[in-house]
Amino acid sequence: MESETQGHPITCKAAVARRPGEPLVIEDIVVAPPNPREVRIRVICASLCGSDATFLKLQGGPPGYFPRILGHEGVGIVESVGKDVAEVTKGDVVIPIFLPDCGECTDCKSTKSNRCTNFPFRVSPWMPRDGTSRFTDLNGDIIYHFMFISSFSEYTVVDVANLIKIGPETPPDRACLLGCGVSTGVGAAWRTANVEPGSSVAIFGLGSVGIAVAEGARLCGATRIIGVDVNPEKYEIGKKFGLTDFINPKECGNKPVSQVIIEKTGGGADYCFECVGMASLVHEAFASCRMGWGKTIVVGVDKPGAMLSLSSYEVLHDGKTLMGSLFGGLKPKTHVPILLKKYMDKELHLDGFVTHEVEFKDINKAFDLLYKGESLRCVIWMHR
Amino acid sequence: MESETQGHPITCKAAVARRPGEPLVIEDIVVAPPNPREVRIRVICASLCGSDATFLKLQGGPPGYFPRILGHEGVGIVESVGKDVAEVTKGDVVIPIFLPDCGECTDCKSTKSNRCTNFPFRVSPWMPRDGTSRFTDLNGDIIYHFMFISSFSEYTVVDVANLIKIGPETPPDRACLLGCGVSTGVGAAWRTANVEPGSSVAIFGLGSVGIAVAEGARLCGATRIIGVDVNPEKYEIGKKFGLTDFINPKECGNKPVSQVIIEKTGGGADYCFECVGMASLVHEAFASCRMGWGKTIVVGVDKPGAMLSLSSYEVLHDGKTLMGSLFGGLKPKTHVPILLKKYMDKELHLDGFVTHEVEFKDINKAFDLLYKGESLRCVIWMHR
Repeated sequence: MESETQGHPITCKAAVARRPGEPLVIEDIVVAPPNPREVRIRVICASLCGSDATFLKLQGGPPGYFPRILGHEGVGIVESVGKDVAEVTKGDVVIPIFLPDCGECTDCKSTKSNRCTNFPFRVSPWMPRDGTSRFTDLNGDIIYHFMFISSFSEYTVVDVANLIKIGPETPPDRACLLGCGVSTGVGAAWRTANVEPGSSVAIFGLGSVGIAVAEGARLCGATRIIGVDVNPEKYEIGKKFGLTDFINPKECGNKPVSQVIIEKTGGGADYCFECVGMASLVHEAFASCRMGWGKTIVVGVDKPGAMLSLSSYEVLHDGKTLMGSLFGGLKPKTHVPILLKKYMDKELHLDGFVTHEVEFKDINKAFDLLYKGESLRCVIWMHR
Repeated sequence: MESETQGHPITCKAAVARRPGEPLVIEDIVVAPPNPREVRIRVICASLCGSDATFLKLQGGPPGYFPRILGHEGVGIVESVGKDVAEVTKGDVVIPIFLPDCGECTDCKSTKSNRCTNFPFRVSPWMPRDGTSRFTDLNGDIIYHFMFISSFSEYTVVDVANLIKIGPETPPDRACLLGCGVSTGVGAAWRTANVEPGSSVAIFGLGSVGIAVAEGARLCGATRIIGVDVNPEKYEIGKKFGLTDFINPKECGNKPVSQVIIEKTGGGADYCFECVGMASLVHEAFASCRMGWGKTIVVGVDKPGAMLSLSSYEVLHDGKTLMGSLFGGLKPKTHVPILLKKYMDKELHLDGFVTHEVEFKDINKAFDLLYKGESLRCVIWMHR
């Protein structure tokens, strides 16, 4: 069944980031039809991730591009597909994922990697396959994409390498969370660290990603899950996701947090996660993990150019491991459906992450809630 | 059967490091009987490791102690045992290992760790259990131990936590190599990195430890083993131990070594080993390993205070792992006997490491050969 819009540009509303740090502007834009191996999607809802805010604030010059349509967590319905697309068809419900999964390269075929070599991860202002945009404003000027997704628009175009088809029964305001932050945190514990039953975990920073690490560690059977945050309210929130202990660095006096963790765990946590995005905290996390086998996982995104510094002696002598976790080490098309099933089977908690909901016209309220630290995830409904 | 010396001090020859950087002095010393859980050993032969030379050169103050008996690779015969020693008895052939393995602590019981918590690794001037010395000179002044072993003496006292009993048929001038350097290199590939069949390996620095990494990688089934060294003669030596490729950084022009490795391997080596002991080289090794799953293993010992620096972005985005490898991640009492069996079964090459032999009285020649870069391992025979 062909749609009336298939093959034609669609004029619709989008929230455009026109200038660094300023509120998004809801305006009419034109969304071109999908190229080969691309899919045009009507967005049902999107959720706001911290990275959207980070990139909104970046002053001019790469990787800050303006005007741009942000958003990279969302759920949509396929409106039309480009040439050579067999994976999905009109009416399918899909989650777009910023990390491509072409299914054909050495990495995508390997069980060890979630980095697609055909379409490397980039905070690109373009579509991944041909480096062009599908968005223009009413003056005909180009509007840039964001992380291959741009979910803050009624319609967007996404490459098939970035799409996962899901069942129509899936609540979209929960499924959208799996597009980035929650998947990243849960995956960091499950796939990157491979947390073992009975183990101890310390999490630096209890934003959505840190809370999701706790949830992932709980699912993996960790028995001691220690959260570290300067906001004491995070303890109550975190308890619902498996947190068993809480450390407020402001209340540790002159004692380093690593020392408190070493005392609490009798030698250091088996797994430590840096979820704040401060390179300097990585050293504290490394110091907090257990000699002999402790793993430190870098999940937080620091500013470009930030350096991690560790003493050569510590790395050599302490038997510890340092790893990064991009999208939680998840292979999008393999692991996101597993997380979704765990949610439908009531094993994975997603509901508690959604603290707020707004209509699309009020999308800037979602940013305000994030800036104030009041929300974990705010769902933005395109039409309701 | 009691020996005549049991329970009594023994006067014997030792090579004493009297002053930083100066040749060792062969002199008569007194070796006290073993305390409880200690064993006194008649050393058959010892081999010289780079760390002996490093510590000989350290100017006064910890961890440089003088006068001291260096040496931490060796094979000996039990002369007498202290109280509560059931593991070995007079006449047993033993390899002392500097990394203790008490068999009782959480770490020693775990398969994941080779760090004993009861007796942590230290370049200690004392015995591990009570922090005293068994050596005095003829004036009655204390002589310090080195790494719990001190094999450059006709007799030495070693804790049972540092001893492995071996079969009397084992050639001592091969078994001694397993005390440190060769075990460390082979273990770094086998236990720390867990090199997989068919994988690619890059090794920075082709001293004994780097060559042993090649040997370990070969045993693990790696098909591409790339050595990096400024001395082109190392290629011929390394070929005997599985090296398939060689890079001389001096011949790479303006191209970084990491770029050459990435081109040779089509994306980077699966496993990279830093065996020089230069913190700055760790970054080059990290850059040389494959995005998605590459592991970088720090094996070389840099100066105290040396820092490793990696960009936060690279760690987060590249899906790579950084690990240290002390004694190759080997659990001494579990894994050294396995290596020894592999040698006796003609799987593990040890013979090629022994490039020189000297009598005990000529021990300073062994240091000269090491300083000139002419030897891999020089075996020092106590009596022959």
